[in-house]
Parts: sequence; structure tokens; C-alpha cells
Amino acid sequence: MRQLQGATRFHRRAIKVDEAIRLVIEASEPGRRETVPLWQAGGRRLAEPLAATTDWPPFARACMDGYAVRSADTALASPESPAELRVAGTVAAGELPAADVEAGTAVRIMTGAAVPAGADAVVMLEQTADALRDGRPAVRVNRAAEPGQNIAQRGEEFRRGSLVAGPGTPIRPGHAALLGTFGYADVPVFARPRVAVLATGAELQPVAAALAPGGIRDSNSAMLAAMVEQSGGTPLLLGSAADDPAAVSGIILQALQQADLVVTTGGVSVGDYDVMAALLRGIRETGAFRPDWRPEESDGRPRGDDPADFGASPEAALRGGDNSRLLFDKIAIRPGSPTSAAVVDGRLLIALSGSPGACFVGFELFVRPALRRLQGASREEAYPESTTARLLSDYAKSSPHDRFVKTKLIDREGVLYADPLAFGKSSMMASLPDADGLIRIPAGPGGAARGSIVDVLLLPRSFV
Amino acid sequence: MRQLQGATRFHRRAIKVDEAIRLVIEASEPGRRETVPLWQAGGRRLAEPLAATTDWPPFARACMDGYAVRSADTALASPESPAELRVAGTVAAGELPAADVEAGTAVRIMTGAAVPAGADAVVMLEQTADALRDGRPAVRVNRAAEPGQNIAQRGEEFRRGSLVAGPGTPIRPGHAALLGTFGYADVPVFARPRVAVLATGAELQPVAAALAPGGIRDSNSAMLAAMVEQSGGTPLLLGSAADDPAAVSGIILQALQQADLVVTTGGVSVGDYDVMAALLRGIRETGAFRPDWRPEESDGRPRGDDPADFGASPEAALRGGDNSRLLFDKIAIRPGSPTSAAVVDGRLLIALSGSPGACFVGFELFVRPALRRLQGASREEAYPESTTARLLSDYAKSSPHDRFVKTKLIDREGVLYADPLAFGKSSMMASLPDADGLIRIPAGPGGAARGSIVDVLLLPRSFV
Repeated sequence: MRQLQGATRFHRRAIKVDEAIRLVIEASEPGRRETVPLWQAGGRRLAEPLAATTDWPPFARACMDGYAVRSADTALASPESPAELRVAGTVAAGELPAADVEAGTAVRIMTGAAVPAGADAVVMLEQTADALRDGRPAVRVNRAAEPGQNIAQRGEEFRRGSLVAGPGTPIRPGHAALLGTFGYADVPVFARPRVAVLATGAELQPVAAALAPGGIRDSNSAMLAAMVEQSGGTPLLLGSAADDPAAVSGIILQALQQADLVVTTGGVSVGDYDVMAALLRGIRETGAFRPDWRPEESDGRPRGDDPADFGASPEAALRGGDNSRLLFDKIAIRPGSPTSAAVVDGRLLIALSGSPGACFVGFELFVRPALRRLQGASREEAYPESTTARLLSDYAKSSPHDRFVKTKLIDREGVLYADPLAFGKSSMMASLPDADGLIRIPAGPGGAARGSIVDVLLLPRSFV
Repeated sequence: MRQLQGATRFHRRAIKVDEAIRLVIEASEPGRRETVPLWQAGGRRLAEPLAATTDWPPFARACMDGYAVRSADTALASPESPAELRVAGTVAAGELPAADVEAGTAVRIMTGAAVPAGADAVVMLEQTADALRDGRPAVRVNRAAEPGQNIAQRGEEFRRGSLVAGPGTPIRPGHAALLGTFGYADVPVFARPRVAVLATGAELQPVAAALAPGGIRDSNSAMLAAMVEQSGGTPLLLGSAADDPAAVSGIILQALQQADLVVTTGGVSVGDYDVMAALLRGIRETGAFRPDWRPEESDGRPRGDDPADFGASPEAALRGGDNSRLLFDKIAIRPGSPTSAAVVDGRLLIALSGSPGACFVGFELFVRPALRRLQGASREEAYPESTTARLLSDYAKSSPHDRFVKTKLIDREGVLYADPLAFGKSSMMASLPDADGLIRIPAGPGGAARGSIVDVLLLPRSFV
């Protein structure tokens, strides 16, 4: 392991969290497209506008089982003096009416069937009684029918050519119904973004490994895989790497060949071995992502260690990274202030903290919005979703930075309450699964008082 | 096509919606299990309790980059009079401390590293300054350190053997982090339920087909496929079938061989051709699901048509269905009162209405709870999720039944408002994609007034 000398320690300017989110969203564009069968399109975002291919309903349809009638024929009907109409025929769904409805007649009609010409109302079966007139079937109607009653008129919901859903729309079950109705057996959608995930840190061991002294298992990769799936992406897990810039930059440059987005965890802080911090400083200073970059200036604080040696790997350098820019390498938030982002050869590299809580918050603030944008969400839609809630307890901590606090959300009589989870430390994992949202406590001296209204970033909930 | 004579029309007793949901949930049990890699376990429900395999943290860990110290050594420290400590060594994450911290010394420590013996606090790097003492590295600390500061103590979050998550827990990203931490590379989960979907109705054409006169496309299957996916299941689309009991019962019996649950749409009403209503009546009257069942009693209303002939298919009859029971075939709700359910040879058959709106509501009320239960949710957890909200407009319609009304949900200053969607007809599809929830308007004369608090069944929202 090489010491990186804390070389990146004192050159980082914190930006505000909203600015950081904006920079990530503006650096993301709608990505690859593909066509999928309609039945698999649920949850994807539409890549093109789709329009109604017919009027809908395509013909006047019965909404009930009963009788198609002329409402005028029933105008005087009552239980005591029902209107008696000759039954001129039957029409089932999927059939064309064989007979028109003429004055004094009715046609037996099933839900979904085309209303015969002449009829302007459908009387529910339950409001009729069978009869015979001259030995032929008839029906008695007990109540006056309103014109249009129980009929869905042609084009009532959609006119041919009108927009059903625009590009970027997340396809919900109701959209699937509409697209099926209009014959879209195959649907143009944005492809699932491929998200490479690399954990950095010499202490990290694979989840399957027995725990070595001083070691911990790489749990962030599994957490991020679940978050990527929740966001519509496909995780490509690269495992973990020690804090070696040559190795890490080589892995990242290779990952950029196949991934739409690269997420790393760890190594962003001010520690002596913070590999991502060093690599990102290289981007900031050279505009390129290179394993052979070395800091040219000292941080002004003499140390007893050897000068940093970033261990050039010419092979990795050849792969790319020439056209890179740093978006940010410090944010005025807790947790996760060293969270960083860069664009490397046109693709986003987001470097999250290694502490699970900060990694989690960083994903919600920066990675999920980028994944939304890659899947065709507008810039506005890509922002984290938030709601407002009343704080159930004082959150007394003052902070010079915006702070995101895990919370349960509780609704009582139409009012939403935020109940902050007990463990505040960002390293805490135990309460992560219980969080429904992240309260945003704005920077300031007082924290937030019980009963005050706070913004809460919403976390996905399970409907499984 | 055979006329079924409306044979099922007048024998159906409506039960209350809560009773219907209860019957479905009680007829469902946790289903098949499987083991999946941790990185694919997000969103599944755990099949077994999983416990902490070590204390967590496994050793006292530094939460910050800085110096491990004895807090007593810093008790009098101030910016004017800093405590100067000799730097006895360095410990990085993943390493074991080489040196203990003795009185008057400090050890440089990185986030995540094991705190050396002797130290009881970690001072942030930012609160220190480098120094030299007798030509050897030292550090100045400007502020008294609290005992325990910036240290996560061994076992602080979990004791070995304590429960991490119980069976039936939906695995969120935070759980994935915990399971990774404790070495669960493979996770026992409930299998995705296989859900066969069959649309009935002679008017139905495949989505890819050109529209024939009087016909409409089978849009319910695509909608249900998306809903099944949202619920963690795998849809098996059987296409559509005309209203022929022999054919439909044969398809259903075959589907029960491979599916955990069968959902049908259409044919449940009181129309002359309602195939599912007829088949379910057969279950009610015989305790078996058979294509050759015929009604033995007339409904007391003479008709001019031929007697029903259910067209026995001995092959289908041999496959099963002998051990069946009806759960319900009428519910006091709108939309979807003819929604029915039965247990056929131990598996649920849920027959939804064919109208898209009623089909949608029926899925949320009955199918999603059954799918939750099949995936290991407790009976309590299987019920539809609801919240409360304030109604933004009068909903004046009185109803003898509970009514479910599509709504948008809007939050303002911590208060949730329900804005009912304009189109109330259950056949309406246009507003389906816009619904965030389903307002439950209880049975009664007045509907519900603006400003009143209503229960709202929550619909899944997209986080993609």
C-alpha cells in the first residue's frame, strides 16, 4: 500500500448540496433506448411519445349488462306502470348489433358490446323484468332512462392522435392498459442503465469471506446493488480494491467501457490513503483521469513519509480518461461531505463515502437523480422526491451544513409526522432499513424544533 | 359461443369488502422458497430469521480520520495551550494497530481502523496540527477530547446472535448492507409467485392485432402483468379466451399446474355469457372446479334460449379441481361488485371484472395482498396499505356499497390532501395512470364532504 500523503486535504471547496445535485443532473442526459414487449414495460420510462391509434372507446359501448333502449320510450315508466318493449335481438361483446333499436323495442346487450343504432341508453338488467308480448320476448322497464345512461360514447376518453404518454413517462399499470388498448405490443423505452459499483478500502473483504482481524466485509456493494435495482438500473459489481491509485484507476477506466455510470465507495476523505480523493484531485488539476498523475504541490504541512508515488499503469492510461472534469469534491452536508463527482470521457463517476449511512444518503441525493435522468426523466423530474412533515421531536444539533437525518414517517388523521431514528451517526447501519425518509435539517444554529415543518426526502417503499 | 343463460344471476350474496380481503388472505400461505445471491436479494422477502454472526462493529473503530489519544492527556488542551503528543505510529483501516497508545502519545488513525489499546478517543485531523519533538513527529491537539469521541464501540450496533431481520421482511437496501456485514452471501427468500393471467371475453383481440369491428384489444393482461411485477411476482400471460366454459376451465386447470395463483378478468357479471360466473357457481354448488358442471336449477325466470351446455372436456376434468371451494362471488363495493375468488386444489383463483378500472381496484384489494402473503408477509402485513388524507372536493355520490375512487395525493405543509380524479366511471382508463391512491368512500347516503378525512389505499409510486 502506498501512502498518498493526505495530498488532497486542503484544496477542496465545499459547495451547497442543491448545487451538487444540479451539477450531477446537468451532467446526465437521457441514455440508451431499446424496445421491449408491452408486458415487460411496466416500471420503465417511455422513450418516445405514443398517441391514441383510434378513438377510445372505438364505438359507443354498453357499460352494464341490460337492455339498449330509446330513452324516450321509457320517459313515463314507473314500477306501477313499466314501459314494455319488444326484445328485437341480443348483442354480446365482440359482436356487431344485428338489429337497430326502433321505437317500442329494446335489444338485450352485454357489458362492452356496441350499442345498436337508434338506442341512446342502456337499462341495467336489475331494473328490468322479463315479459312476453304476443308470445314473443319482451322486457319491462321500471324507471325512466336518462339519455346516455350506462353508455361510454365513442371517443369519450381519447380522440385518435391525442397523446397517451410522453417521452420520459414512467410506465405504470394504467399506462400499460392504455398502450395495450392502442395496440402497442412493443414499447420504446430507455434501457436500464448499467451501473458499475467499486468499493475501495484495504479493510474490505468479500461478503463470503471469514472475517480477518481488523477487516470488515464489503457491505456497501450489496446495498448499492439493491439501490441500483430500485432505481431501474442493472448493477455491475466490481468487488473491492485496496487504496492503490494505479489499480483503482485501471478498474474504473475499464468499467467506463461497459457501464453508463460508475459509483465508488470509500477513499474520498482526508485520510492518508484516500485513493479516490487523490484521483479526483488529479482530474481537477489536469482535466484528465490518469493513474500516473502526481501532486505537484505539497499541502504545506511537512510529514515524515515518502513522497507519493502513484504507480503509473500505461495500459490503463491508454484506455481513456483524457477528457474529464471534476464536478465537485466537497459538499456542505452531513453525512458525506467528501462525496465527489466527475465526468470522465462523458460518463459520470460518483465517489460516495465509505460509511454506510453517508453512502446511502449520497446515493439518494446524487446517484438516483442521475439514474432517473439516464432513463429519460426531465431535469426537473430527476431531483429527489420530497414531502413535508411535522417533526415529532426536537432535533437540537446545530450545524454549519445541511444535515440529512434518517426518519420514520407516520401519518395520523391526514397529517404526516417525521420521527427521527435514534442513531444519528452516519456510520450506523442498524437503523438504515427502518428509514422511510431523510429529514433535511437546514444549516443553522438551532437545529429544528418539535412541531416544526421539515422537508423529508422520500425513500422507496416496498409494495411487495 | 354458448349462451350460459344468466344462470348465475340470482344466487350471489354480497359480502363486505373487508371480509372479502380477509378471506383471500386467510386462503393464502407463504409459498415456495429459494436462495439467491445477496446482491440480487433486494426487494424480496426473507424466508428465515437471520442473526448477527459477530458483534458489530467487530472491534472499536475510528469514525473519523485523525489521531487516537488518551482523552485524559488532552483534558487541559486549548488553542492557546495545545496538548503535544508524540506520534507513536499509524494505523490504517484493515490493519491491526502496531503500537498501543501510552500516556503522552497518539497514533495516527484512518476512518474504519481499529482503535489501538490504551486510546479512548479519536481527535479529528482538522482539530490537530503537526509538530516535531526532538526531531520526531508529534501532534498538537487544540481541544479536550471526550472519552469515546469519534469511536464506534465494539458491539454498539449488534451483539452476536441478535436478530438482524425476521422471516417475511422485505429486504431494503439497508438490510442488504447488514446481511453483507454479517457474511450472508446467499440469502433465503420467498420465490417470486408465478401468476397466471387469463382474460375472458369474445370481444378481446391480442394487442398486436388490427382492431376488428366490435372488438377491443386485451389491455387488462398487460396492465395485470405490470401489477404482478410491481408486487414481486412473475406474470404468465395466457392470452384471452372466448366465453366457453370448457375451454376456459381447461386453461385454468392447466395454469394451476404451473402457477401459484390464477387471475382472470371478465365474465364475472350477470350477462348471458359470463363464463367465470358460471364456473364459480359450479364450485359453489359442487365443491369442485369442473368444466362439465351444469346448473341443476333454473333461476326462476323463463328465457327463450336453449339450456346451458357446458361442453364437458374429460381431459381437463381429469387434471384436478376436485377439491375446491368458493370464497365469494359478490362484494358490496363499487367498482367490481361481481369480483370473485375460489380455492381450487389449494391454489387461489381470483376472478376480476373485465372493466379496466374495476380490474385495477380488484387487483389492489385482493391480488396484491395474496401475493404479499405468498411471499411471506404476515396476515396483518398482507392487507392493502392505506393512509388518511383530507378530501379536496365534495364527493356527493351516495352509495349502498363502499366505493373506491381514484385520486391524486397532494401534500402541503405536512398535510396530505386527496384530489379525486374527474372520471368516476370504472370503465374509464384515461385517468388510471394518474392515480396515487384509491379513496374509500364508505357506504352511506351522503358520500363524503370536502375537508373530511378519508382513508386512501396507497398505490405504488415510481422511484425510477
